[in-house]
Amino acid sequence: MDTELDDLVQALRCLPGVGGKSARRMALHLLERDREGARRLARAVDAAVENIGHCSVCRTLTSAETCERCLDPDRDDQVLCVVESPGDVMAIEAATDFNGRFHVLLGRLSPLDGIGPEELGLDRLEERLRQQGTEELILATNTSVEGEVTAHYLAEMAGRLGIRATRIAQGIPSGGELEYTDAGTLAHALSGRRDY
Amino acid sequence: MDTELDDLVQALRCLPGVGGKSARRMALHLLERDREGARRLARAVDAAVENIGHCSVCRTLTSAETCERCLDPDRDDQVLCVVESPGDVMAIEAATDFNGRFHVLLGRLSPLDGIGPEELGLDRLEERLRQQGTEELILATNTSVEGEVTAHYLAEMAGRLGIRATRIAQGIPSGGELEYTDAGTLAHALSGRRDY
Repeated sequence: MDTELDDLVQALRCLPGVGGKSARRMALHLLERDREGARRLARAVDAAVENIGHCSVCRTLTSAETCERCLDPDRDDQVLCVVESPGDVMAIEAATDFNGRFHVLLGRLSPLDGIGPEELGLDRLEERLRQQGTEELILATNTSVEGEVTAHYLAEMAGRLGIRATRIAQGIPSGGELEYTDAGTLAHALSGRRDY
Repeated sequence: MDTELDDLVQALRCLPGVGGKSARRMALHLLERDREGARRLARAVDAAVENIGHCSVCRTLTSAETCERCLDPDRDDQVLCVVESPGDVMAIEAATDFNGRFHVLLGRLSPLDGIGPEELGLDRLEERLRQQGTEELILATNTSVEGEVTAHYLAEMAGRLGIRATRIAQGIPSGGELEYTDAGTLAHALSGRRDY
């Protein structure tokens, strides 16, 4: 194959979920049908890599020193939602009308991988909780083992500071069928039942 | 969302098979986990768009004036395989040990879309057939209606020039089950049966 074409195919494979065949299809599509889109893509990737870093306050991805959400004066300072990654912020924003503040851990506690409270910058979060007058800390880490451990740690931190900690609900996903739900989820769903 | 991040997500959607969610996942992956890969991707896309054009002989994609396959003196000039797109060349090269020449139409005859023999540059192909001393023209256009029409047209051209025309076999794909094969394919498979 042509060297530059092969370079393009190989470079496209760095995208998640893109194997050899998809990469070839993408390369041919860009070259045969959408060279303008390809140029725009190259510029956008360059600009993003060059300019996007982490927000100085909440640590989500942003091209500014401080992200729009943190600068927005209309958001509720009393509620802070802690998530693991910038993608979680986007997912919550897209699905809910949550209007408080966010804090992105950029990871989760994982002692086996050498990621403790320091590596996650939890001292910084504690500082933020003190200064911002947070009244409720929403623990929206994943429901994986590490996510639960992280939530537990953060709940204790909130307790020391006299702040109410809440955990996102765990249960049957929308449209789910009880019969095919795993035991852990079903146990959470039952123990977390609410008045109807 | 951050403007530059949003630009990147939108730009990634020009890739085939990539919708909003995949684009977001790709953008976050590049920024959070693989900035070096992202830089390499931007460079490769730029270089490819800038330098890759069509081979002056066979019209496949190449960054040279004439592609490696056309320059290779060890290939058999007597056999010419006609395909619709550069992707078809790659697929044949990857799957077979075909060692003749290729000709890429960059399309198919489609009168309804205003694509006739001239638009496909078939005069150029005829010229090539005359000059190159081709003895067999392999018709490897797709088995779609337009692909069949194109193959039929090329077979007549070959006939006029006294060149043998062959069509790739149509039948049950490998691992296929007769019971679930469509009627057209099954009819082709039966009528195209060979001594065993």
